[in-house]
Amino acid sequence: MATSPEGTNLMQPEPIFDLAHLGHMELLTPKPDESLQFFVNVMGMTETARHRDSVYLRGWDDYEHHTLKLTASKTSGMGHMAFRARSQQALERRVSALKGSGYDVGWTDGDLGHGPAFVCNDPDGHRVELYYETEWYEAPPELRPALKNQENYLGCRLTEQIVMNDGSEAGMWFTVSNKSYDFAYTRDHTGTRGRFHHVTYAVDCREDVLRAADIFLENGVFIETGPHKHAIQQTFFLYVYEPGGNRVEVANAGARLILAPDWKPIVWSEEERKKGQAWGLKTVESFHTHGTPPVDLGHS
Amino acid sequence: MATSPEGTNLMQPEPIFDLAHLGHMELLTPKPDESLQFFVNVMGMTETARHRDSVYLRGWDDYEHHTLKLTASKTSGMGHMAFRARSQQALERRVSALKGSGYDVGWTDGDLGHGPAFVCNDPDGHRVELYYETEWYEAPPELRPALKNQENYLGCRLTEQIVMNDGSEAGMWFTVSNKSYDFAYTRDHTGTRGRFHHVTYAVDCREDVLRAADIFLENGVFIETGPHKHAIQQTFFLYVYEPGGNRVEVANAGARLILAPDWKPIVWSEEERKKGQAWGLKTVESFHTHGTPPVDLGHS
Amino acid sequence: MATSPEGTNLMQPEPIFDLAHLGHMELLTPKPDESLQFFVNVMGMTETARHRDSVYLRGWDDYEHHTLKLTASKTSGMGHMAFRARSQQALERRVSALKGSGYDVGWTDGDLGHGPAFVCNDPDGHRVELYYETEWYEAPPELRPALKNQENYLGCRLTEQIVMNDGSEAGMWFTVSNKSYDFAYTRDHTGTRGRFHHVTYAVDCREDVLRAADIFLENGVFIETGPHKHAIQQTFFLYVYEPGGNRVEVANAGARLILAPDWKPIVWSEEERKKGQAWGLKTVESFHTHGTPPVDLGHS
Amino acid sequence: MATSPEGTNLMQPEPIFDLAHLGHMELLTPKPDESLQFFVNVMGMTETARHRDSVYLRGWDDYEHHTLKLTASKTSGMGHMAFRARSQQALERRVSALKGSGYDVGWTDGDLGHGPAFVCNDPDGHRVELYYETEWYEAPPELRPALKNQENYLGCRLTEQIVMNDGSEAGMWFTVSNKSYDFAYTRDHTGTRGRFHHVTYAVDCREDVLRAADIFLENGVFIETGPHKHAIQQTFFLYVYEPGGNRVEVANAGARLILAPDWKPIVWSEEERKKGQAWGLKTVESFHTHGTPPVDLGHS
Repeated sequence: MATSPEGTNLMQPEPIFDLAHLGHMELLTPKPDESLQFFVNVMGMTETARHRDSVYLRGWDDYEHHTLKLTASKTSGMGHMAFRARSQQALERRVSALKGSGYDVGWTDGDLGHGPAFVCNDPDGHRVELYYETEWYEAPPELRPALKNQENYLGCRLTEQIVMNDGSEAGMWFTVSNKSYDFAYTRDHTGTRGRFHHVTYAVDCREDVLRAADIFLENGVFIETGPHKHAIQQTFFLYVYEPGGNRVEVANAGARLILAPDWKPIVWSEEERKKGQAWGLKTVESFHTHGTPPVDLGHS
Repeated sequence: MATSPEGTNLMQPEPIFDLAHLGHMELLTPKPDESLQFFVNVMGMTETARHRDSVYLRGWDDYEHHTLKLTASKTSGMGHMAFRARSQQALERRVSALKGSGYDVGWTDGDLGHGPAFVCNDPDGHRVELYYETEWYEAPPELRPALKNQENYLGCRLTEQIVMNDGSEAGMWFTVSNKSYDFAYTRDHTGTRGRFHHVTYAVDCREDVLRAADIFLENGVFIETGPHKHAIQQTFFLYVYEPGGNRVEVANAGARLILAPDWKPIVWSEEERKKGQAWGLKTVESFHTHGTPPVDLGHS
Repeated sequence: MATSPEGTNLMQPEPIFDLAHLGHMELLTPKPDESLQFFVNVMGMTETARHRDSVYLRGWDDYEHHTLKLTASKTSGMGHMAFRARSQQALERRVSALKGSGYDVGWTDGDLGHGPAFVCNDPDGHRVELYYETEWYEAPPELRPALKNQENYLGCRLTEQIVMNDGSEAGMWFTVSNKSYDFAYTRDHTGTRGRFHHVTYAVDCREDVLRAADIFLENGVFIETGPHKHAIQQTFFLYVYEPGGNRVEVANAGARLILAPDWKPIVWSEEERKKGQAWGLKTVESFHTHGTPPVDLGHS
Repeated sequence: MATSPEGTNLMQPEPIFDLAHLGHMELLTPKPDESLQFFVNVMGMTETARHRDSVYLRGWDDYEHHTLKLTASKTSGMGHMAFRARSQQALERRVSALKGSGYDVGWTDGDLGHGPAFVCNDPDGHRVELYYETEWYEAPPELRPALKNQENYLGCRLTEQIVMNDGSEAGMWFTVSNKSYDFAYTRDHTGTRGRFHHVTYAVDCREDVLRAADIFLENGVFIETGPHKHAIQQTFFLYVYEPGGNRVEVANAGARLILAPDWKPIVWSEEERKKGQAWGLKTVESFHTHGTPPVDLGHS
């Protein structure tokens, strides 16, 4: 073990990571009916609310009350854009930095779907709002989809988990970034600690996963299961064993990212897992038993 | 303007965002030659270095020295996994939290490609390393690709920019998340401040962008340009005008994310921009001139 | 020139090419309402007619009155399947061959959408019908799509053509197979005869065309235009020049085939061509002027 | 049964279907080395032979000796194009029609890879050759892929079949067009004749099959198996049951067509079938047992 590198004098100012993501945008339109028809019927968005001259809309898989506020106006353009902060503390740090900068305007009570917002102007003159409190979207029964995650020391966030009927956790997916998971734990059937299940390589599209299957086939690489779509995380997957025996996954996540800083873990029950993967493929037995290094279970 | 919500007593402990991403993994293999052949010839990874019993490998578009350390061993499994912290300060905060937790092991001098790392064990007994200093990969000339961003108050990071021959900036792309950009600024040809260029909707794959083109065509929506691939950010794009006159983009970014917390902005020159988009499509004139709200340029 | 190989005594019996394609199938269902809901609302088919216990359905781009006849029945299974002959003469040759074979049943008056059919049983006992006369589907105005070809000596069939305002033909696409075209002629702007415009290579999917564009870019191959979708034939295209100067196309046609033996050429007008390619891309000037071998247009 | 429609006086001249497909093209190039490098290293074609100033090339899955003849020349352009006739008889009918037409030139002894060819000029002055005898390509062991069909009365051609160890046929795929199959027979496990296994709907790309899986999932339609790739015919498949109990397949065949008029059936053995589908998915039991109408197997 080496000497600690802590306490160096050469440290740079720490970068700021206080904003989580672009939350919504207000678009102004001189043709409100036609614009609404475009966003609903052509783009496939859903209306969540109406208030005064505005219609609030969200796209499929958006987690907030709305991501687009369409407002009737004499002209077209952007009314404002709004960023969600990573936490209430992060919001307050940004407000403290902005106050007195010349760009700050002040607090508003918020809007439909989100709490108090601090208004500022960007250098180009656009109106920008910062907020943290938000209303999570609840799908009505008819729009509920067929498919549905904290480690204190590292700051990992749990995005999805499997909880068995006896209350035990059979699987946990964690992220440290905007990816839906950076790593995961599943229960080892041998009860051994520290074993390895697989490492995943992300490719650009599902066609790349399909092509990978052909490449593995032509190269005589053992394909364990896939390609198919995971119910959990909805990644499109393919599992093979590299010659050393370690499992390798090739996967594509589509455009799915976990942008919400207060993501609530999705819990899958034992019954739901028994349905197999997204489109019904039964999980192969080896997926539960094969891990590395191999464990001699003995029979003496 | 409403009263400030700052100083509430109900504030939750702030979530931790100190880790940037999974940096690399060490895989152990009892068949080092065959495993290396698999990762290089079947998976398409590139060898960066060899040291003792290990070969260091990286995948296409990985920004660090290596993302896989393949180590000859008596058995298979994972040697360790390593997370890169968001900053030196973030690394030290995690080390402080870990010390005395029972999971901490101590500092190492680092490895090929990265600086000092703090070692700990996860609850399941795997070895985990945390580091910040890293060596950025420099492609040798024969592997250099054909295609190649700070706002202090908000913490936005510049990912790409266009710098003209006279030194002025013609375009800037900013992110607050792991997306390659959350918003962008380009120079307005009318010199007007606060105008709107477009809003982008992300879809899961490029086939969805191609289908969107057919949907717009069948619905009589004006297609301004695309589908084609942007040189900047490499997103696959399609631009239309919604009835109110505002420009809307439908795009897919593949699996590309900006995970490096110390990303260095990519600078595009005036000459490079003249080559058109990625595959040579010339940027249509309206892309430079159309913005909302409309501006009366007058001629009096 | 060599001696003619005609009149060889070793000639094999000529293979039979008298059937054009599977025309439709009658499915029996004990749950007619639910089955209809499935084919219309889930599969996206369209109802064309109802008669007694049957609903007649067609899929997008099917050229006949129906391709599925869904019939209420006590049980499930296939009622019959029907093949369209390549011509009335071809139908009669098959009927002559079948008569007295033990598989023949006899003529029916036909059904909604097609003329007289000869009924036979296949060796497994399914009912099979053969017909030639058929009713071409005419889309009602609300379903009409945004996008809309004789060489006697060789038996080539014209599938699409461009006719200018002055009545002259500017382009002709011919097929000898089920592909939408095997070769095409376009007017040479230099008026020279026998020049070459391009050769096309078909790939499995549009993602392959997009990947080809990246491969050409990385290899410094000149991309003339694309990727984009042709209005004519609707192929997804990409044009490059190989080093010798000849134009090469990489294209994907989707699942589109010309199965109708009596296909009526689709005629494109001068105005329609001016709209550019399917999604509005303007045809580049070189596409009209570049051909091989080069022609010295001189100016003496 | 109705009166026969044979012998009508209104019969049109029978269309000609004597050519099978475009067989190959000769391209002239003033830069033979660079053009060869393009077709081999960029386009991915394979050299089959060299003779005088020409290199003979074929693309993946091409069944003939070559589909491109690249010839060094003073200029660029097309040397000739060649069509393969559907049969020797069909070739002779075309030659008879051409003789004396003014377009005919005469017979040649053929070229590497194909037999005697009749030469003619098209109206635009290009050289066109017609041939029937051809040399089928035999892949050398190192290029042999991991994945490897007559009904006299109808003129159906067998494209693939399964032959069990006892010599019995367990499956047969037939075509009447250029599709790899129009219909198929498999052995019924109940021994019942005339039952129905499934009907297939073709979609434009594999992404459409993947999307179909999501649509079926959201609509509560039972997914029997897939999406996955068939070993036989290599189509990408998805099987569901419509409410009436009949099995429906949604599939994509890529760009694969059976163009060879003398296609030799591909035979799959019992051992090969036991490997499962292309990427190893085991065929579900119901695929062998479920057919419509249901059969009461009784146990009395």
